[in-house]
Amino acid sequence: MTKINDRKTEIITVAAKLFKEKGYSAVTMRDIAQAMDIKAASLYNHIKSKQEILVLIIVEIAEEFTQTMDEVVHSEESTIKKIEKIIQLHIDITLRDANALACLNNDWMHLSDTELAYFIKMREEYEENFRTIIKKGIADNEIKNLNLEVIIFSILSTLRTLYLWYGKKKSPDSKTLTSNMIQVLLNGIVIH
Amino acid sequence: MTKINDRKTEIITVAAKLFKEKGYSAVTMRDIAQAMDIKAASLYNHIKSKQEILVLIIVEIAEEFTQTMDEVVHSEESTIKKIEKIIQLHIDITLRDANALACLNNDWMHLSDTELAYFIKMREEYEENFRTIIKKGIADNEIKNLNLEVIIFSILSTLRTLYLWYGKKKSPDSKTLTSNMIQVLLNGIVIH
Repeated sequence: MTKINDRKTEIITVAAKLFKEKGYSAVTMRDIAQAMDIKAASLYNHIKSKQEILVLIIVEIAEEFTQTMDEVVHSEESTIKKIEKIIQLHIDITLRDANALACLNNDWMHLSDTELAYFIKMREEYEENFRTIIKKGIADNEIKNLNLEVIIFSILSTLRTLYLWYGKKKSPDSKTLTSNMIQVLLNGIVIH
Repeated sequence: MTKINDRKTEIITVAAKLFKEKGYSAVTMRDIAQAMDIKAASLYNHIKSKQEILVLIIVEIAEEFTQTMDEVVHSEESTIKKIEKIIQLHIDITLRDANALACLNNDWMHLSDTELAYFIKMREEYEENFRTIIKKGIADNEIKNLNLEVIIFSILSTLRTLYLWYGKKKSPDSKTLTSNMIQVLLNGIVIH
């Protein structure tokens, strides 16, 4: 990787952390430069605007989610296996890049027109693909015939906000996290 | 209710909607006045600052959650019944006041020192009370012996972000929402 790309990665990393702490609107290019211990003018050598940073943070991760979901929905596996893969995808990205996920969740609405439309399209397709998976599971008698939206968003809400709590004091290790998350989301918590 | 209190309620309602749409930092007192079709100066007759509005929105709801959780944790009911009551609490507040919940979730970090500390204390106690309920459920052989944090936050994440999707096109009616949410969160989605 060239030095310029290293610098860009550093900007993105620092900015994602600041956006997470203070929110996109409250952070200035000057804040980002200060956190990197460089002059604001130097920052503009690498990046056009705060908006460009936001796009780099959010769109890259959204595309990663989109691509993996596409593979999963078109695979020949059982519904249970497909859901397990989606749980694993969210856990992997959370462990790797929690600040960027926070930024995606909190600040996506600050993307400008074209990028915003692209992001929303990806997000809707992701949810629609997840619906397709669950519908097939219900048809195949693998999944209970409950309301589709409740199923979809109970699972997605849990996965999308994992970054909010995972890593705090009482968190389990990543292996326990994965196996227990699959247990809780698929089989519930009640002993019958 | 006096006219002044009506006005205050209106300010809170309008502000919560604006905060939800643009985020607390991006909204000015002028924006709030404009949305109410009054002069900014008149706004200050009713409310000191944007911060006071934020406190009124967030703290009131946080206290409602705290109080009901206190009653539930000290009741003599089964763990399952306790969890069902907590699910119902979140659904009720979401149906009644989705904008305020959005504001609580997105903008709590913008509360100033004392109020922020008070809010964080309430939130931590809420989670701790929920842990107490689940621990007792595990001890009583009602709940599976899975990782406590995964159980707590799978349920709470789903309930806390219900306002994000409930009310959109494919949403079920509120009765279906409650019964299906209890099913999904307690018993899971897989047919064995």
